[in-house]
Amino acid sequence: MATTTVKAYGSTAPTEDLKPLDIERRAVGADDVKIDITYSGVCHSDIHTARNEWNGSTYPVVPGHEIIGRVVEVGNGVSRHKVGDLVGVGCMVDSCQTCSSCQKDLEQFCENGATFTYNSPDKHLEGKQTYGGYSTSVVVDEKFVLRIPENLDEAATAPLLCAGVTTWSPLRHWNVKKGDKVGVVGLGGLGHMGVKFANALGAYVVMITTSPEKGKDAKRLGAQEVLISKDEDAMKKHQNSFDFILNTIPVGHEMDPYLGLLKIDSTMVLVGAVEPLKPFHGGNIIGGRKRIAGSLIGGIKETQEMLDFCGEHNITSDIELINMQDINTAYDRVTSNDVKYRFVIDMKSLK
Amino acid sequence: MATTTVKAYGSTAPTEDLKPLDIERRAVGADDVKIDITYSGVCHSDIHTARNEWNGSTYPVVPGHEIIGRVVEVGNGVSRHKVGDLVGVGCMVDSCQTCSSCQKDLEQFCENGATFTYNSPDKHLEGKQTYGGYSTSVVVDEKFVLRIPENLDEAATAPLLCAGVTTWSPLRHWNVKKGDKVGVVGLGGLGHMGVKFANALGAYVVMITTSPEKGKDAKRLGAQEVLISKDEDAMKKHQNSFDFILNTIPVGHEMDPYLGLLKIDSTMVLVGAVEPLKPFHGGNIIGGRKRIAGSLIGGIKETQEMLDFCGEHNITSDIELINMQDINTAYDRVTSNDVKYRFVIDMKSLK
Repeated sequence: MATTTVKAYGSTAPTEDLKPLDIERRAVGADDVKIDITYSGVCHSDIHTARNEWNGSTYPVVPGHEIIGRVVEVGNGVSRHKVGDLVGVGCMVDSCQTCSSCQKDLEQFCENGATFTYNSPDKHLEGKQTYGGYSTSVVVDEKFVLRIPENLDEAATAPLLCAGVTTWSPLRHWNVKKGDKVGVVGLGGLGHMGVKFANALGAYVVMITTSPEKGKDAKRLGAQEVLISKDEDAMKKHQNSFDFILNTIPVGHEMDPYLGLLKIDSTMVLVGAVEPLKPFHGGNIIGGRKRIAGSLIGGIKETQEMLDFCGEHNITSDIELINMQDINTAYDRVTSNDVKYRFVIDMKSLK
Repeated sequence: MATTTVKAYGSTAPTEDLKPLDIERRAVGADDVKIDITYSGVCHSDIHTARNEWNGSTYPVVPGHEIIGRVVEVGNGVSRHKVGDLVGVGCMVDSCQTCSSCQKDLEQFCENGATFTYNSPDKHLEGKQTYGGYSTSVVVDEKFVLRIPENLDEAATAPLLCAGVTTWSPLRHWNVKKGDKVGVVGLGGLGHMGVKFANALGAYVVMITTSPEKGKDAKRLGAQEVLISKDEDAMKKHQNSFDFILNTIPVGHEMDPYLGLLKIDSTMVLVGAVEPLKPFHGGNIIGGRKRIAGSLIGGIKETQEMLDFCGEHNITSDIELINMQDINTAYDRVTSNDVKYRFVIDMKSLK
C-alpha cells in the first residue's frame, strides 16, 4: 500500500528525549479523512508511553491523542466531513464496530480491542503500529474524526479530545445535574476540565485539593467552594454531603477521606489513577451503600456531544502553547505538575 | 418506667465467655409488640461485639439480631401484629422515621442514627442500651417487627433476619434477574444465602471460592458452576463475563482477581469486609467502567419482601441448632469457619 512520509516527533527508547522522526501515513482510503494537524495537546499518557512507564511501548513512539486540524483530503465514501472542515481526533482511531460495546457507542471498551491513536497495532499497515498527533498530518477513518465548533479557540480545543471527554463522560454517565453537589479532586489537566463541565451542567462544584494556593484558580474556573482535604474539621463538615465525586488524582492515594464525603448511594469515579490505590476500609462503602467506579475516556458519540456542548457554552481548556521543539522541557514540567493546565503544541513549528 | 426482668446470655468483658445474665425489658407501650423468643441466630457480628473487636462495645453485651418468636402482648396502638403471630426482629429496632433515608425505607442509613438491636442507646430506657435476642423475650416497636411465613421451618428462618436480608438487598438493589451471570464469593453464612437467593431469582450462579471441597455443597445450594479462584486458567476463562458479583468475604482481601471477572459497567458489592481491603489497581475499574460498592443489611420494607419471597419459594437457612449453654463453643467454631452455615439457638434451653 502506498504511504506518504511525514514529519513527526517521537521517542526511540524509554530513557531518550523525543526527537524529529520521519513516519509513514497510509494513502487515503474510501472511508478516510486526511488531516493537516494544526495543534496537538500533551497528555500525561503521552509521557507514560514515551517512557514505557506502563510497559507495552513499541518504539519508536509518536505520542499525541489530542489532535486538531483541517481536512485536506477525503475518500470517496466519506460523508461526514469535507475538505476545509475543522476537525479533531482523540484517543481512538478505530474499533470493530460490531461488538456489543461498539453497538452501544462505547468504542473505548471494544471487545475486540479498540485501535488507539498511538502505540496500537495498525490494521491498515500490517506489522506497523499507529503514530499519534506529534506530526504534521494523519489519516483517520471518518467515524473517528470529530467536528470541532468553529467559534472555539482552535488551540485550546485540543485537550477536549482526551482531558475533556475523560471528565465529561463520567459526569454525564452518572447524570450530574443542576443543583447536585459535585466534588472534583485534584486540579490538573483533568481536574480543571471537570470543574468547568460540572459548573456548566449546573452543579454546585467543590474543588477538593491538598493545596490551599489552588483555591483562587479553582474558583476562577467555576468552583463555588474549595475544600482543603488536609483540613480535618472542614472535611468533617462536608461528611455525607456529596452527590458525586470526580477523582482525577493520577497516582495511588488514600480514598477513605473522600468516601466519607459521599452521600448514601453516591459514587466516586476514578479517572486518573491507573495504578494501585492504597487500602480503603470496607466499612466506608458498606455503611451508606457507596460506590467507587472507574471511567475511561468516552465513546465517539459522547465525544461529539461534549464538543457540541463546548461550542454552545464556549468551553475550552486553559493551555500553554509551545513549539514542537520544546516538548522535552514540557514533559519535565508536566511530571512536576507545573502547567496550567495543559500544554498544546503549535504544529506550525514542525512544518 | 416499669420494666420486667428476663433471662439472657451476654458478655461482661471482651475476653470473657458469655454467661447467664438478668436484663430489663421495657413495659409494652402503645406501639409495642412483646415477643416470646423461640429461636435466635448467631451472627459473626455478635462475636465482634461481644469481644469488642469493632470497639464501641458497652458491657454487658447481649447479642442476637436474628430473632424469631411469637407475639404474646401488643400495645393498644398496634395494628400490624396480633397475639399468637409468628414474627421476627432483625438488626434494627428503631429509627427516626423522618429523615430522607427513613422516608425511602432505608432505615439502616437513618441520618439520625438507627437504633440497632443490641449495643445501641435505648430511646425508651434512658441511659441504657439495647439488648439482643439471646434472651427469653423482647419488646419492640411494631414497625420493626416482621411477619414470618408460617410454612417455613421456624428455627431456620432466624438467619434470614440478618444474613438473609444482607445478601437479598444488594441482589435486588442491583436488579439481578433471570439469565444474569452472578458470582458469589465466599461460602459461609452470607454466601450460602446469596447462592440460594441468586438461584431463586433465576440467575446463573457461579460459586467463587478458594476451596475446591466446597464445590459440591455450593451446587446443592443452587450454584450452577464452581470457580476456584486460585485456578488462574479458570479465572482467565471467566474474564469480563459476570453481570454482578456478591462478595461475602468477611476480611480484607485482594479484589483485583474478582474485578477482572466483571463485565463492562458491572458491579461487585462487598457485604462482609468491614475492615481495610488490600490495594486494588485503578486500571481494573477504569478499564471497563466497573464499580465496587458496599451494602448494609436492608430496610424494613425490603426485609419483609425478602421474607415473603422466602415463604413463596420455601427458602430458609441451613442451620445447626444449639442450646444457649453451647454458645461459647459455637463462637469458637464460627471464628474457625466450622459451621454449615449458621448456628441458631433454641431459646427453650434458656427458659
